Amino acid sequence: MERLFKHICLVARHSKPGITPALMQLADHLAGGGATVLIDKESVTPAEANGYPLIDRTDMGKLADLCIVLGGDGTMLSIARLLAPYRVPLVGINQGRLGFMTDIPLHEMLDSVDAILHGKFVPEDRILLQASVVREDAEVAGALAFNDVVFSRGAVGSMIEFEIFIDNQFVYSQRSDGLIVSTPTGSTAYALASGGPILHPTLQAIALVPICPQSLSNRPIAVNDSCEVEFMLTRGLDARVHFDGQLHCDLMEMDRVLIRRYRNPLRILHPEGYNYYDMLRHKLHWGERLI
Amino acid sequence: MERLFKHICLVARHSKPGITPALMQLADHLAGGGATVLIDKESVTPAEANGYPLIDRTDMGKLADLCIVLGGDGTMLSIARLLAPYRVPLVGINQGRLGFMTDIPLHEMLDSVDAILHGKFVPEDRILLQASVVREDAEVAGALAFNDVVFSRGAVGSMIEFEIFIDNQFVYSQRSDGLIVSTPTGSTAYALASGGPILHPTLQAIALVPICPQSLSNRPIAVNDSCEVEFMLTRGLDARVHFDGQLHCDLMEMDRVLIRRYRNPLRILHPEGYNYYDMLRHKLHWGERLI
Amino acid sequence: MERLFKHICLVARHSKPGITPALMQLADHLAGGGATVLIDKESVTPAEANGYPLIDRTDMGKLADLCIVLGGDGTMLSIARLLAPYRVPLVGINQGRLGFMTDIPLHEMLDSVDAILHGKFVPEDRILLQASVVREDAEVAGALAFNDVVFSRGAVGSMIEFEIFIDNQFVYSQRSDGLIVSTPTGSTAYALASGGPILHPTLQAIALVPICPQSLSNRPIAVNDSCEVEFMLTRGLDARVHFDGQLHCDLMEMDRVLIRRYRNPLRILHPEGYNYYDMLRHKLHWGERLI
Amino acid sequence: MERLFKHICLVARHSKPGITPALMQLADHLAGGGATVLIDKESVTPAEANGYPLIDRTDMGKLADLCIVLGGDGTMLSIARLLAPYRVPLVGINQGRLGFMTDIPLHEMLDSVDAILHGKFVPEDRILLQASVVREDAEVAGALAFNDVVFSRGAVGSMIEFEIFIDNQFVYSQRSDGLIVSTPTGSTAYALASGGPILHPTLQAIALVPICPQSLSNRPIAVNDSCEVEFMLTRGLDARVHFDGQLHCDLMEMDRVLIRRYRNPLRILHPEGYNYYDMLRHKLHWGERLI
Repeated sequence: MERLFKHICLVARHSKPGITPALMQLADHLAGGGATVLIDKESVTPAEANGYPLIDRTDMGKLADLCIVLGGDGTMLSIARLLAPYRVPLVGINQGRLGFMTDIPLHEMLDSVDAILHGKFVPEDRILLQASVVREDAEVAGALAFNDVVFSRGAVGSMIEFEIFIDNQFVYSQRSDGLIVSTPTGSTAYALASGGPILHPTLQAIALVPICPQSLSNRPIAVNDSCEVEFMLTRGLDARVHFDGQLHCDLMEMDRVLIRRYRNPLRILHPEGYNYYDMLRHKLHWGERLI
Repeated sequence: MERLFKHICLVARHSKPGITPALMQLADHLAGGGATVLIDKESVTPAEANGYPLIDRTDMGKLADLCIVLGGDGTMLSIARLLAPYRVPLVGINQGRLGFMTDIPLHEMLDSVDAILHGKFVPEDRILLQASVVREDAEVAGALAFNDVVFSRGAVGSMIEFEIFIDNQFVYSQRSDGLIVSTPTGSTAYALASGGPILHPTLQAIALVPICPQSLSNRPIAVNDSCEVEFMLTRGLDARVHFDGQLHCDLMEMDRVLIRRYRNPLRILHPEGYNYYDMLRHKLHWGERLI
Repeated sequence: MERLFKHICLVARHSKPGITPALMQLADHLAGGGATVLIDKESVTPAEANGYPLIDRTDMGKLADLCIVLGGDGTMLSIARLLAPYRVPLVGINQGRLGFMTDIPLHEMLDSVDAILHGKFVPEDRILLQASVVREDAEVAGALAFNDVVFSRGAVGSMIEFEIFIDNQFVYSQRSDGLIVSTPTGSTAYALASGGPILHPTLQAIALVPICPQSLSNRPIAVNDSCEVEFMLTRGLDARVHFDGQLHCDLMEMDRVLIRRYRNPLRILHPEGYNYYDMLRHKLHWGERLI
Repeated sequence: MERLFKHICLVARHSKPGITPALMQLADHLAGGGATVLIDKESVTPAEANGYPLIDRTDMGKLADLCIVLGGDGTMLSIARLLAPYRVPLVGINQGRLGFMTDIPLHEMLDSVDAILHGKFVPEDRILLQASVVREDAEVAGALAFNDVVFSRGAVGSMIEFEIFIDNQFVYSQRSDGLIVSTPTGSTAYALASGGPILHPTLQAIALVPICPQSLSNRPIAVNDSCEVEFMLTRGLDARVHFDGQLHCDLMEMDRVLIRRYRNPLRILHPEGYNYYDMLRHKLHWGERLI
């Protein structure tokens, strides 16, 4: 059988104690099976790398056919934004605590990865958002987001005011702590804490979830992911826009931020038998079957 | 120019005082323009009908090319369920108070209807749900719903317990006052009062919104409208299923209710310039543009 | 030392399998210690009672100095309403699953009860509500409630409409599925599922929590427990008022229901070391100390 | 009749255009009636003051028997914190838009103030919170709050983690955007936007309202205002504590903030006929009487 994935890049959540041995075990296993193994240079020290080539995160997309993350949802987010432009799929292994995206437990790592390499997996394409910050008609910043683009007040204790347009149609002005523009992936993260709905990953939708809106009738709304969402800051001295809670950009009054679905989805490979609802029920302590 | 709609059926919200003169004015206007006018026999008395043929609501779909409702969202719901099997489009005229669906004000009725008859309209296709109640493997009832299929406890003051499956995958068991399975159209009705998200009408989604769930982590979820949702009552002495809040069916323990998107959408014709967000902002008192 | 409680009545949740041996073990232990033991006649059969006098629940308040419940929060509610007029304190023993009120685990039953009989306990006085249903100026029904007085629509799928007055001041009219008027005890029950706040048991407050209100700005409000709350049904064909979810009364349009704090509180005796927040954290899965 | 208030201090919301003439009209009216009028020096320029003595805001409490604010709720908050130590009562006049606290409309200003000066008013005592920031056992900051003490993350996009103790009993650890500790007065401000309950001003309660908590079971809780609430920051690089959204203090990990009810309440004088529920219904667009 032909090998689906020849060049495999491994990433671990840096700063996570005890993860390097597992990472090297996986590297040896894959190399033993004939794959070319690359390791993210932020994940291990050169002394730990055991001769495997260390590469920049920004080169992963060009060099690898598959990327395997040992870590949590936070690591998945940052790698997803890097891989999406190259259409490289992603596998997530957790270290004990099930993640929304890292669904393979560490102790099943070798068997699960072998099965995936043999084509036994459930592929799931998930959208990203592409945001562009526009100041006086010039783009001053841009970024991708896998979970969410979040507009928020800064450290000063006052609300921000903004206007929202969807496909150039005015939607509302709002005074609030901020607004979360979320993908289905992000709908179980910050958006959920702020009262947003859960969106199934296959739903072609973007959710707009207000954060502590002053008007009690402002409620979450989900729109088609083919829409362009435009945010315009009308008042706010230290407002910011955050991407996946990992990158941010300061905003000035009258700045506009345009948000669209990114042209490429990010493909996550799940082990066979994967069930989104099982994961959700487990993470959210929903009721199990009674009879 | 060819006439798009030759046979036009008029419906008014019965019991609404003062509506008959407006209905007859519209009838005369349409007949004067060459249309064949039919009138719903529940809307006026034979004496009021002025010679126009009175027809059964259940015959509207077969006899009309277009149906115009003078009334509120409640009338639209019942007519939508009757028209959907026949793919007959619907126009809604309100009597002063903007509805989520009845967006033409009474005083603009004649001009707006003329424009629509001349092909100047914004068509909007909206899904319905088809529900089937299954008891011991036999279907005992079935109905369409344009807003929602609602499972609820009856008059006895205790919660019901049920299990939910989506495309045969177990989702959760729940103890609550009930569950709302809502179309995008229904997302601004009962589902919104119960904490559900607003779904744009073009979003291909169904929302599952729990009603007062005992577990605080049970939250609304939106799934693709190609999914089949299955509800199974595991405990509840006087549970019921409601369709658009207008029809209902008693449930017995172990009854299952299967819910799918109905094969035909219902087409609503809006006047040119129609904007969903304008309507939403008006109905929900959202903030207008500030600058 | 003088005995605080001479006549002790035991109650078990009938229909709970395996509870009778525990009840009889407790009875023998208390009788062996010199107490006069009475047993609720709904809790055991005469054959099981082993010679202990069986009494009507309605006589417990007159005959006992203390009542001990083996069961869940539901049993506590019904006994609390019966004891409150007689100021007889209550002890709650659970059978494995911690209750909001039944805080002594079964396996610590004998030691905990001994300690309580020797005066080692934390007393906690909790309010009840007294409700009176008035139709055309005549009281047609009345009841106590330890958790809540709940107004709700019946089995027909339409909302009810009502007006609320507090101390004769008009508060609001509302269209909703209903309204929960809750004591602090009830604030962790149905009111919590409907979005109400948790009220500490010592807070002298009553909460009004709307159930799925049509207007999105209707929110829970807590007022002083010295207030009189008046509900008037203005529209609703099959509305009902429920007391602790255990008793109910049908309402007619224009019926009024007056709700006041009952003159006597109900005293619960907790074991020493009792901590309300520990119980709450355990029941609601709140975060434990991290450091 | 003896004059209740001899020295009256006037305050206007600085930066509000057109307010000075109204302030001077009120000053002349009061002086004409025999009162000694003082004017806050932040409210008008010396040229505008027309000879009335201008005083520091911090001296108001010592020099005045009564303080009248022309402005919004924000101005009321800052003046309330300054007056509370001196037990000087406060009157609020709005400029067209009803405030939660400024309930006298500008066009009724003179008549309403006259009535109040003649003893015709409804006094309402409202609590303040006193907060003390403790770092390594030393108090490093302290402030009063009339609305709320708010703990929040700063501009960095990550949640903070903290522990809460009430009367030295551990309540919970929480990961969230922050926490609002609110008086009844503050319950209709930021706490309401964050999902908290409305607390009637006379309720002796403090509400703890989480802001976007990661755990879905974290819910608002109201406790007796005799409690001491302790917040300890366990994780958070740029956390802050805000007082009424007007003052703030940066926090370091392991800082503790102790919050108690301030020893003095602040008395607001309302015109006769004042009704808290009327104000609430108006501000929140609640339903009016239907019949």
